[in-house]
Amino acid sequence: MGSRKYVYAFGEGDGKNKQLLGGKGANLCEMTQIGLNVPPGFVISTEACLTYLDEPKRELPAGVMEQVREQIAAVEKASGKHFGGADNPLLLSVRSGSALSMPGMMDTILNLGLNEQTLVGLIKQTGNARFAYDSYRRFIQLFGKVALGVDDEHFDEIFEATKHRMGVAADVGLDENALKEISASFLQVVQAQTGKPFPTDPLQQLELAIKAVFNSWMGKRAVDYRREFRITADLANGTAVNVQTMVFGNLGDDCATGVGFTRNPGTGENVMFGEYLVNAQGEDVVAGIRTPKAILEMEDEMPEMYRQLVELRNKLEAHYREIQDYEFTIEKGVLFCLQTRNGKMNAQAMVRTSTEMVNEGLIDRNQALLRIQPLLLEQLLFPRLDPAYKRDSITVGIGASPGASSGLVVFDADTAERRGRLGEKVILLREETKPEDIHGFFAAQGILTSRGGKTSHAAVVARGMGKPCVVGAEAIKVDSRARTAVIGAKVLHEGDIVTIDGGSGEVYLGQVPTVEPEFSDELATLLGWADEVAKLQVMANADTPNDAQRAVKFGAMGIGLCRTERMFNSPERLPIMVEMILADDIETRKKILGRLLPMQRGDFKEMLTTLAPRPMTVRLLDPPIHEFLPTEQRLLDELIHLRQLRGSVRGLESLVSSLRALHPEKSADIEGSLGVLGDSALVEETIARTEIMLSKVRVLQEVNPMLGHRGVRLGITYPEIYKMQLQALCEATAECVKEGIDVHPEVMVPNVCTKRELEIVRGYLDEVKPQVEKQYSVSIPLKFGTMMEVVRACLRAGYMAESAEFFSFGTNDLTQATFSFSREDAENKFLPLYNEYKILDHNPFEVLDVNGVGRLIWNAVDWGRKGRADLVVGICGEQAGHPETIRFCHHAELNYVSCSSPRVPVARLAAAHAKLLEAEYKW
Amino acid sequence: MGSRKYVYAFGEGDGKNKQLLGGKGANLCEMTQIGLNVPPGFVISTEACLTYLDEPKRELPAGVMEQVREQIAAVEKASGKHFGGADNPLLLSVRSGSALSMPGMMDTILNLGLNEQTLVGLIKQTGNARFAYDSYRRFIQLFGKVALGVDDEHFDEIFEATKHRMGVAADVGLDENALKEISASFLQVVQAQTGKPFPTDPLQQLELAIKAVFNSWMGKRAVDYRREFRITADLANGTAVNVQTMVFGNLGDDCATGVGFTRNPGTGENVMFGEYLVNAQGEDVVAGIRTPKAILEMEDEMPEMYRQLVELRNKLEAHYREIQDYEFTIEKGVLFCLQTRNGKMNAQAMVRTSTEMVNEGLIDRNQALLRIQPLLLEQLLFPRLDPAYKRDSITVGIGASPGASSGLVVFDADTAERRGRLGEKVILLREETKPEDIHGFFAAQGILTSRGGKTSHAAVVARGMGKPCVVGAEAIKVDSRARTAVIGAKVLHEGDIVTIDGGSGEVYLGQVPTVEPEFSDELATLLGWADEVAKLQVMANADTPNDAQRAVKFGAMGIGLCRTERMFNSPERLPIMVEMILADDIETRKKILGRLLPMQRGDFKEMLTTLAPRPMTVRLLDPPIHEFLPTEQRLLDELIHLRQLRGSVRGLESLVSSLRALHPEKSADIEGSLGVLGDSALVEETIARTEIMLSKVRVLQEVNPMLGHRGVRLGITYPEIYKMQLQALCEATAECVKEGIDVHPEVMVPNVCTKRELEIVRGYLDEVKPQVEKQYSVSIPLKFGTMMEVVRACLRAGYMAESAEFFSFGTNDLTQATFSFSREDAENKFLPLYNEYKILDHNPFEVLDVNGVGRLIWNAVDWGRKGRADLVVGICGEQAGHPETIRFCHHAELNYVSCSSPRVPVARLAAAHAKLLEAEYKW
Repeated sequence: MGSRKYVYAFGEGDGKNKQLLGGKGANLCEMTQIGLNVPPGFVISTEACLTYLDEPKRELPAGVMEQVREQIAAVEKASGKHFGGADNPLLLSVRSGSALSMPGMMDTILNLGLNEQTLVGLIKQTGNARFAYDSYRRFIQLFGKVALGVDDEHFDEIFEATKHRMGVAADVGLDENALKEISASFLQVVQAQTGKPFPTDPLQQLELAIKAVFNSWMGKRAVDYRREFRITADLANGTAVNVQTMVFGNLGDDCATGVGFTRNPGTGENVMFGEYLVNAQGEDVVAGIRTPKAILEMEDEMPEMYRQLVELRNKLEAHYREIQDYEFTIEKGVLFCLQTRNGKMNAQAMVRTSTEMVNEGLIDRNQALLRIQPLLLEQLLFPRLDPAYKRDSITVGIGASPGASSGLVVFDADTAERRGRLGEKVILLREETKPEDIHGFFAAQGILTSRGGKTSHAAVVARGMGKPCVVGAEAIKVDSRARTAVIGAKVLHEGDIVTIDGGSGEVYLGQVPTVEPEFSDELATLLGWADEVAKLQVMANADTPNDAQRAVKFGAMGIGLCRTERMFNSPERLPIMVEMILADDIETRKKILGRLLPMQRGDFKEMLTTLAPRPMTVRLLDPPIHEFLPTEQRLLDELIHLRQLRGSVRGLESLVSSLRALHPEKSADIEGSLGVLGDSALVEETIARTEIMLSKVRVLQEVNPMLGHRGVRLGITYPEIYKMQLQALCEATAECVKEGIDVHPEVMVPNVCTKRELEIVRGYLDEVKPQVEKQYSVSIPLKFGTMMEVVRACLRAGYMAESAEFFSFGTNDLTQATFSFSREDAENKFLPLYNEYKILDHNPFEVLDVNGVGRLIWNAVDWGRKGRADLVVGICGEQAGHPETIRFCHHAELNYVSCSSPRVPVARLAAAHAKLLEAEYKW
Repeated sequence: MGSRKYVYAFGEGDGKNKQLLGGKGANLCEMTQIGLNVPPGFVISTEACLTYLDEPKRELPAGVMEQVREQIAAVEKASGKHFGGADNPLLLSVRSGSALSMPGMMDTILNLGLNEQTLVGLIKQTGNARFAYDSYRRFIQLFGKVALGVDDEHFDEIFEATKHRMGVAADVGLDENALKEISASFLQVVQAQTGKPFPTDPLQQLELAIKAVFNSWMGKRAVDYRREFRITADLANGTAVNVQTMVFGNLGDDCATGVGFTRNPGTGENVMFGEYLVNAQGEDVVAGIRTPKAILEMEDEMPEMYRQLVELRNKLEAHYREIQDYEFTIEKGVLFCLQTRNGKMNAQAMVRTSTEMVNEGLIDRNQALLRIQPLLLEQLLFPRLDPAYKRDSITVGIGASPGASSGLVVFDADTAERRGRLGEKVILLREETKPEDIHGFFAAQGILTSRGGKTSHAAVVARGMGKPCVVGAEAIKVDSRARTAVIGAKVLHEGDIVTIDGGSGEVYLGQVPTVEPEFSDELATLLGWADEVAKLQVMANADTPNDAQRAVKFGAMGIGLCRTERMFNSPERLPIMVEMILADDIETRKKILGRLLPMQRGDFKEMLTTLAPRPMTVRLLDPPIHEFLPTEQRLLDELIHLRQLRGSVRGLESLVSSLRALHPEKSADIEGSLGVLGDSALVEETIARTEIMLSKVRVLQEVNPMLGHRGVRLGITYPEIYKMQLQALCEATAECVKEGIDVHPEVMVPNVCTKRELEIVRGYLDEVKPQVEKQYSVSIPLKFGTMMEVVRACLRAGYMAESAEFFSFGTNDLTQATFSFSREDAENKFLPLYNEYKILDHNPFEVLDVNGVGRLIWNAVDWGRKGRADLVVGICGEQAGHPETIRFCHHAELNYVSCSSPRVPVARLAAAHAKLLEAEYKW
């Protein structure tokens, strides 16, 4: 007729053209054309939709219905069924489908074409009158609502009234007659509400249904959805309509319905996988009324069908080159494929299928890498709760460091350590943690806090150590002094067993079995491929010799951040550090630092040796020194306690002297039995010491510790500390060199905001290094660089680069300074609302804020490389382990990212993705 | 002889060529050549110095001594004196002088040419043998030390031994013979130490002196000085040597010596000014042994000399076109001008001379502006201590807000307010201040704290109010509870009078009289000229109607920053604000805000009316709301107190009931006499309220308040607060418009880091404004803009400008974020060291850090104007009042600066300087 083509048979539409045919329509065309037996049908294009919506009178574009009629004729021919026929009637499903998936935008209309005549045909076809009437009353309600705008409640009222009258509770209680009666009432409802009889002409039904789908595109639900997800006009170009023959798996024992996976999605194993039910509808499989059979059983029960199913599976994988999750129906011995999509699998299965599909030649290595979302790998790297074991959690906090573990609840770090030494497994439960609790972290299996967010102290430290951690479990009221915690009506006592899942944030009473992770051969292979592709190097943040071993195990190419302060936190070293801080003069401080030096040297040497020949970047002392001291509150509490103790001791002393006066002959015995208990001098000494510490804590207090006296600012006010650290590193290096170990240490200065600060520290190095070189008669290889975590340093990057051989962006602090957000305060107070209001898309402490912080980094890299062409640039904040951040870093041409060890595999894969998906990146 | 010219007579050297002749030499040439009677002499060039220093054998370049001899012959001829002569001997002074002043680099050698023969001549000339021998022994020691390298101590030993032997305490006790003996011993010292006799040939003396001056250029003192002040090689090109005839003002009553100012440096009045002594040496004037006479007396005493002096003065001003500070000596009726330099004057004199010199045609307006350093004007704008009144301060703190005032010491804001209401003048003395003390600021004459720096709360608020303030007076130990303060051995009690000088930081006991400032006509004229020249506009920061009046008085072109929170701090409003914060639900909060609305509207209207037609920028609520609440510590203290009180009240109650039981007949009397004292319900209520407040304070506590829940973050979590403020401003504006007043309000959103935040607040305005416009039937003119005080906002400036009509850089917070410095912490802990080590040249909270923060601003302005071409840009941090910052702002093409009112005149002048000195600016 010369009119434009709007309607496409599944056999002719372009399976790649989602813009024209919508996602679902294109998929149906694709499946049909690769030879799968799809119930026949056709697609009305999005073009028709847009033309229709532009037309004020809301008439379908000229030619649409003619083309629809032609297609129906073809379907009738192919299926042998007849649209509107009383014998073997052709029934249709009508669905929307736009280019971008918009789930729930419109209901599907099933069994279109039903009327009093075709109903008879359906009863004949199925031999099941109840089923036919049930289908009919459903069709009238759905069509009435969707196409005719009749409110659901009118139908529901009748339905409920009938059930009540019949005295049945569930829908299944209604018999054929009841459903027949309901259908009749429904038709009257439509008449009453619309003023017209329910349309009986199948073609008229179809036209109304098509218009209803098109109209739904501008309906409130769809418009809201697009606004919510910011789908702009150019991406949202209307919906197509999919019209498809209904097929039935419940027409006899030569019928069946089922779902399948082309491989086992739990293990990745290359076997037939799925479930089916004979003589059943799709809903029956889902509803769980009958128990489906494993698909392997079909081989015996329906051997021919099984053979066809294997063929279907092979076709699907050969075509899609991806594991498929498919639905099928067998109608009277004919296998129909209703749907297929990429299968969702756990990490283990993804890794296994990736490597196997490469070996089978189905996909290449790049495809194998790209089909796995990097974050999925996290699953593999921590113990997790046994999925087979079902149990209800007592509360849910924020999962802050993945992995699961069980242990006895303890309420303080000292107890954790004491019981840990006894070989007990403990979970440290606190309101929140402080650096002084660090020995408790070492001893515990996991950390649980009732306050704080994903970047609280507990979260950061636990993540660094790779220990499971749940934070912000606010339902738990912790009373550390009473050594109890209350959760609703439950009271936890010290020693009760709990299990935490640091992934989901769930907390369980008692022991829940866990499954240990394994770094499989397949994963090693896959990550090897990733490394070959990636441009960005992946390093690990690691602070101790143990950490360094873990970093190597996870495939880090070196240590990008070794936080030296963590070396001072162990129980035998912290008191020395405290003593150093309390020292009044530089000479005493130097003397005490001399005791820390061999410890730090030993750690450095062990780490360097473990890593050789990989590089290791050592950050000089960073946190404000008051972090090594107890809090003011704790000291005040201690003083109260100590003063009470003094009273008691004095009481004891006076008791003793009274006793001695009474029994002078037993004087020695009395004295002896008192022992150290009566030593008031000891108490006085402790009080004096505590008072000194308290006054020091008060002197060191800061209004805004995050912006305080830390990093290089300490290095400049207390040069002796940095010099000790530099000496320890130089000596460790010299010893390695002497032993022929190929080591590559680097020194990094934290919190720098001017070039001059770097020069001053460089001056320390120029003083220390030659002395050590002379002493050991070796040459020490040592690179010198700076953290970039102060905005000013970034703004002056060109100058900084003159004094620094490398930059490492500390994006935690940089994010705080760029946003003027204090991490703890923001996460507890307004950040959740900022995410809810879409002021920010992410928590910028988890995913780098590319537009703000990223812009600063981008410029700083540019300026820095102008100052020094071969400047090495990395990033070592928390965000460095996140794939989105890694992608940005790749494009900003950084040399490396450094993240916590368990994130290293994720980062390696993400780095490969960044390279492979370069072309798609938009900033 | 064909050798290069190295030596220049004062009459021939180029007075502008400091590079060749050094500063002092050029000046002597200049004075000589404009016809002033300068004692004759000559300069040996810096070229000679460099050539000499390059010569390994350290011989003077060929020709130097020949040229020197020629010049001496000329001097002899001019003076009639003879170098080395026993009659009328010519004596010389020898001084160094480089292009850049390097004070104290080398001592001056006086009376060179003395030996046994010329000594006789000097005795004859002066008729004063004691003077001659004193000069001789000084010459030997100085020459011995400087030219021959003999250690001072050898001379000092002899000198002290002689004094001891003679039994005299002071040098003046030594007579002619003693000095003669000492001279002889000194000559022996030189012989013994150098192995050679003291050189007696005057020419040899001179050659040695010249070499000594040249050598001093590479001496340790000079090298250190140049390194300290970073004088690079291209600027430091050797020293010249100035050789000049000695003249004597002590050869008789026709001799005199004195110093003069060409105008009165105290008032600027155009009169002869200075002091002189007849028959005296220069040292005598300084030493204060004789009292000098005012120069006007010379008109009677030495009329001819006075006439010549007036002529000298006129010549000086006509030539230098600047007030001169000059030295003169009259030797036997001949007036010599020894030195002249630009006179240092106080601000009043500078302003007066500037306007008068323009009127006299000596200089033009631009020169008049440029000769005054802008910061000098501060002196004029605050009361200052009467300079005539001498008194010792008891301690010195940091002068944080200029001006001087006296008052009774009080230790808390409530007392300040109470006594202030009684009309008493008080000085609020605290360890440090908090926002809750604000009513004390209003009531006090001045603020004194023992802690904090120039940007502490006390300093910032006092500066904003223009009240004198001294902070960080650490010697004062404040005990607020005991209402005493201890300074060394002194104890201050409440009610004792103290005086503070907020300029110098000095603190005095008792009342020190002050001089009130006046905004003179001359100053108004001068600043009018400045405004015509300047490109930058100067606005004021002003928070209350009073402030607004002051801003207008100081010539502000509008208010660039009105901090609305300060309106809530007054004693009658703060409790309402606190109630609002404690409210649990939004409806209660809204109701309470409804009570604040008319107050804020009233303030806005009054300010707008005062300012009309100048613009006023209103910043919405900024500080974290916990700043309106008492501190946790204070509430804890209160609770302890209240609980004690509860115990007492209960005791009272039980006492009453016992009494009633004893005397039932007097029951009513007993009850009545107790009155409210026994009302335990009242106490319970207060306890409950305090406990609620404590728990709220704890909820609101922040780890890093500077980076916390403030500014627009509050506006988003508590929209009702911002909406109330917007409504108050709209209503105030509408009332003004209705009354025909030409007002220009602007709304500014603080602490913004994303464009979306701005859009949300803009949404509030779009909701409120039309309602008010409808209600008042007027159109409300209102600009909408943003503070730029978060780094991210600057990085996203192009986007921000899409939603903001103006930017105002808040450089206090921006500096903190850019440096990651917490102001209080940095100033108390490491910033002083950073300045000492020259890591930073300034305190970046006083002078904008042009290289870091400035770079960010520069880029943000650029990006912002790309987003909106007519974007208005200003700056409103503390630094905005500093001339160096203003200069940067001019070059960054900002539209305005906004500073505290008393800084407005400074800023106006600085803005003119910035324009006039554009060409010299280097960044």
